[in-house]
Amino acid sequence: MYNDTIHKRLDDLRSKMNSEGIDYYLFVTADFHSSEYVSDYFKAREYFSGFNGSNGDLLVWKDGAALWTDGRYFLQAGSQLEGTGIDLMKMGMKGVPTVEEFLTENMLPGQVLGFDGRCIPLGRGKEFEKVCEAVDKKACADAENPVKTSIVLKDLAESVWINRPALPANTAWLLTKGNTGESRKERLNRVREEMANNKCDELVLSSLDDIAWLLLLRGTDIDFNPVALSYAIIHRDSLELYINESIITDDVKKSLEADGVSIKAYNEVYADTEKLSEKVTSVMIDPKRVSYTLYKCLTGKNAKAKLVLETCPITIMKACKTPEEINFERIAHVKDGVAVTKLLFKLHELKNDPAFISGEKKVTELEVADVLLGLRKEQEGFLDQSFAPIIATADHGAIIHYEPDEKTNAVIKKDAFLLMDTGGQYKEGTTDITRTVIMGEPTAEEKRLYTAVLCGNLRLAAATFPEGTTGQNLDILARAELWKAGLDYRHGTGHGVGFLLNVHEGPQNINLKGAAGKLTAAFREGMITSDEPGVYLDGKFGIRLENMMVCLNVDKLYDEGKNRAFTGEDAVYAKEYGPFYGFETLTMVPFDKASIDKSLMTGEDIRLLNAYHTVVYEHISPYLNDDEKAWLKDQTSAL
Amino acid sequence: MYNDTIHKRLDDLRSKMNSEGIDYYLFVTADFHSSEYVSDYFKAREYFSGFNGSNGDLLVWKDGAALWTDGRYFLQAGSQLEGTGIDLMKMGMKGVPTVEEFLTENMLPGQVLGFDGRCIPLGRGKEFEKVCEAVDKKACADAENPVKTSIVLKDLAESVWINRPALPANTAWLLTKGNTGESRKERLNRVREEMANNKCDELVLSSLDDIAWLLLLRGTDIDFNPVALSYAIIHRDSLELYINESIITDDVKKSLEADGVSIKAYNEVYADTEKLSEKVTSVMIDPKRVSYTLYKCLTGKNAKAKLVLETCPITIMKACKTPEEINFERIAHVKDGVAVTKLLFKLHELKNDPAFISGEKKVTELEVADVLLGLRKEQEGFLDQSFAPIIATADHGAIIHYEPDEKTNAVIKKDAFLLMDTGGQYKEGTTDITRTVIMGEPTAEEKRLYTAVLCGNLRLAAATFPEGTTGQNLDILARAELWKAGLDYRHGTGHGVGFLLNVHEGPQNINLKGAAGKLTAAFREGMITSDEPGVYLDGKFGIRLENMMVCLNVDKLYDEGKNRAFTGEDAVYAKEYGPFYGFETLTMVPFDKASIDKSLMTGEDIRLLNAYHTVVYEHISPYLNDDEKAWLKDQTSAL
Repeated sequence: MYNDTIHKRLDDLRSKMNSEGIDYYLFVTADFHSSEYVSDYFKAREYFSGFNGSNGDLLVWKDGAALWTDGRYFLQAGSQLEGTGIDLMKMGMKGVPTVEEFLTENMLPGQVLGFDGRCIPLGRGKEFEKVCEAVDKKACADAENPVKTSIVLKDLAESVWINRPALPANTAWLLTKGNTGESRKERLNRVREEMANNKCDELVLSSLDDIAWLLLLRGTDIDFNPVALSYAIIHRDSLELYINESIITDDVKKSLEADGVSIKAYNEVYADTEKLSEKVTSVMIDPKRVSYTLYKCLTGKNAKAKLVLETCPITIMKACKTPEEINFERIAHVKDGVAVTKLLFKLHELKNDPAFISGEKKVTELEVADVLLGLRKEQEGFLDQSFAPIIATADHGAIIHYEPDEKTNAVIKKDAFLLMDTGGQYKEGTTDITRTVIMGEPTAEEKRLYTAVLCGNLRLAAATFPEGTTGQNLDILARAELWKAGLDYRHGTGHGVGFLLNVHEGPQNINLKGAAGKLTAAFREGMITSDEPGVYLDGKFGIRLENMMVCLNVDKLYDEGKNRAFTGEDAVYAKEYGPFYGFETLTMVPFDKASIDKSLMTGEDIRLLNAYHTVVYEHISPYLNDDEKAWLKDQTSAL
Repeated sequence: MYNDTIHKRLDDLRSKMNSEGIDYYLFVTADFHSSEYVSDYFKAREYFSGFNGSNGDLLVWKDGAALWTDGRYFLQAGSQLEGTGIDLMKMGMKGVPTVEEFLTENMLPGQVLGFDGRCIPLGRGKEFEKVCEAVDKKACADAENPVKTSIVLKDLAESVWINRPALPANTAWLLTKGNTGESRKERLNRVREEMANNKCDELVLSSLDDIAWLLLLRGTDIDFNPVALSYAIIHRDSLELYINESIITDDVKKSLEADGVSIKAYNEVYADTEKLSEKVTSVMIDPKRVSYTLYKCLTGKNAKAKLVLETCPITIMKACKTPEEINFERIAHVKDGVAVTKLLFKLHELKNDPAFISGEKKVTELEVADVLLGLRKEQEGFLDQSFAPIIATADHGAIIHYEPDEKTNAVIKKDAFLLMDTGGQYKEGTTDITRTVIMGEPTAEEKRLYTAVLCGNLRLAAATFPEGTTGQNLDILARAELWKAGLDYRHGTGHGVGFLLNVHEGPQNINLKGAAGKLTAAFREGMITSDEPGVYLDGKFGIRLENMMVCLNVDKLYDEGKNRAFTGEDAVYAKEYGPFYGFETLTMVPFDKASIDKSLMTGEDIRLLNAYHTVVYEHISPYLNDDEKAWLKDQTSAL
């Protein structure tokens, strides 16, 4: 079946390429800020290929086109690309070249590669430079007549894409010191101090959550991430915020200006950074968070500024929440806990409903997601979900990245696990929680594996560890019980979470391999991280249990109501070897008692579970009706 | 008190420096191969300064000299340097510059720094190049008259040091395929395959244990390390071994030659590598294991060979012991276990001896070391100790790097811990073991901490983990119990151990921070590693418990005589998530029952201890007399 629409679009693109002298043109799946989600404006790859998965690169040339995507999307892409003439390149499969390898192989010396460099991270742009060099090398025999393979940075979609959606432009809003415990001015001072330590007078910011954190600014330009499309250039005494002026109200503008922030048009950042690089002596950028185009602007032929490539100082500041932010997160988690606990009660009723048991009453995954969203909306201060909800019944739970949509949406199966990984954005903070419940009777295998995952979750949360400890050191606490059974899970155990910001935030995480073999940031006070071990049996079921935890000095932690500060001899030792940290669990939702096999838990595991459930009951029960409360009492009673 | 001898030696050196045009001359503490121990030939720093600690750099210039050493030696160096005019630079103390910083600060543009580049690793040599560049920069104002600060590679000790000891030259000997399960030819083939994979026709080796492993060659040129001073250049079909010919017997020569090895004079390696670099297209070296001089030889002005700087392929091959090597290690550990168990019995008798209790009978640390050495020598196939024995009574145990010598040697205290970290080289392999025993009655604190260390040791040894797991992931198993008590230890939990080779061997280890923030090598089958948590209370006592373990597939491991292979459902899971590994404990020596507080152990800890003790009794008791056997029976009976 010939796909007319796509062929026509590609033909238009190829004419444009021809007139621009571009031989290969690449669309990636990214916005200008490497955001986790891209708005419709940035979905050129989908427009030109018809493939709408969340990951894919489309390369187009004179007489061909190819689309790269990963294993999650091989089937979907295969069917969506039918009749388009676009080849599917299955990433990671043996013999399948990467985009870079394909270009190195196929480009001819002197040809031109084009892409919108604003969507390409600096590192990848450098890889394409290497591609060009490698292609040139093939031509070195003809040294008399040297040609230069080159890159053109241009957004060809702009002129070819008919009815392209506009850039998002949603009204931005501000937090205050009352929300964060720290004013904009105080944050600016801290960042400028770090700039001075790095001997830099200028810092160019392009990651949206860094800007949001620094300026106490929030928006809704990116799905689930409460941020606004923007760039910032920080000078010694002033700051330029590049943002769509229409989303900045007068009040917001006034507040920003009072702290030396001036508003400039979003698109002017490129010209301005270029000018900046010609005037000042040194500019700091984070090489992992800047686009290739922005980098090229800073290193133009008249640039005299030295580039200081360093991890953005905001990364670690943002990760370490203030005491006020932690307090608000506690409140957000009680609200979220009430919503999720109410959902669990409804599911408890459903599984005991004869109509559900008989198969008469059908409830789908999307319906469960809707009910939960409704319950969250009942909570004051609820703003949005923090990511697309994963509600996965039975074998859907085994697909780690499963998200129900109109096509996959399934009816909740009885006697099967229901895995629910969801989260909310509240005025008080960001939540992320996974619970798995059995919708009937669990098998012995299901109970055994649920219990192993639960023990991993509890043991990690109970850790005590000295300063300097990283997620690579801690991860085994969550996995060891599964390893004993020949099991493992192919994802990290925990990711950082923002304060009323992105649900995935660095620099710390909990996994085995760090980032490219390097240990990730050591835990510090105030870091909020998830704890989410799991088990996935293909075609059968998935189990994941996720709580959010905040890292605190043990002096500030409690166990069964007792302060965990060291006492006696231990306090003397800890003076030499400390400070020691641990985690306070923020999430307030019971685990699924029906799925637990107590006989497989150690005494300490049981004690930890009971202690957690006691705290959950204390915090959540005041917000429940009598039926819910009675159920929660039973669900959280001591094992 | 003016130190005539040292002043005279420094004066001679300064005349030589003057005639050679050298402004600053540096002595370091290293041989040509970055060996762990240096022979007397290399102790120029001691000759010219009088300071004989195991770590120190001596820098000499026209009107001054300074010695850098670390915290272990501040006191000793302070007293040994008295009257020499040499300043003590306390490494790591605030405000104390490194050698490199000192030179950058003090050298004048155009001056010359000299050292024996054969003793300087490539990385440090590069640092000194940077020092010269930095010094030059200070002079950039005078651009009309550019000067070049430079480095001269020369061994000034050669002509100034009167009666310098000769280089070690002890007869080398060979292992056979019967010892290693792999012939020299097979090893050469494997290495050449890796060279081909890296597109290199030549590999230059300068680390002694790599050469020893490859050629099945052993020597006694380095204290405790059974290796011979040598270099090797591997070609596609031949190999040149640079070694003192006098230590190669005819038989050894014949065997080597049969595998394409030709013997050349030790010193010729420099001229030969220089020639090599001018002839061939690419040479592989390990940047971490090559000296600055050798590197300079390979990158001379006529060099045309491309240098491939890669981790030596032998590193990982050597680390993964063959099944035959593992079997021999088991035998070595029974022999060593018999010797150490007999010592423990003697200590048991001593602590109950009324003369010891009354203080009449005095036994010193060195005497204990001697007795143990005697017991080891009784074992057939014993060759040497694998490092200088640490026998540390009471507060000496808290000094992590303590080694008793004539000055520090103390009488074993009653009612105090005695920490013994020792090891042997046997024809069948290398051992390393630490036991701590109480010489009377332990306090509650001593029992509590001994038990915490013991639990850490047992839990790490009992781990089950999938392929890809590193020592950074596992380390917490040994530490977590101590962290709960506010304690920690400032050393790694485990190091790799060679097969009848160096007792410290890479690439794997067990620690929290990896190597410079990077994860170390993942565990593979056949890797032998120590497991040695500890507790150190300054001025009071030290506890360390160390076993050696070999990493094996769980299918090859046993627990209470039962094979640990996965069964049932778990075997199905493990097929997807495996292979899974674990450790077999090689060390066969009981722990100190009198120091254990059983009430602080979990049921699983107790089970692990009892299972280990059962195995120890089975393996060791056949070699004991009746008294020893009865004691061991009691010592290893179930808790």
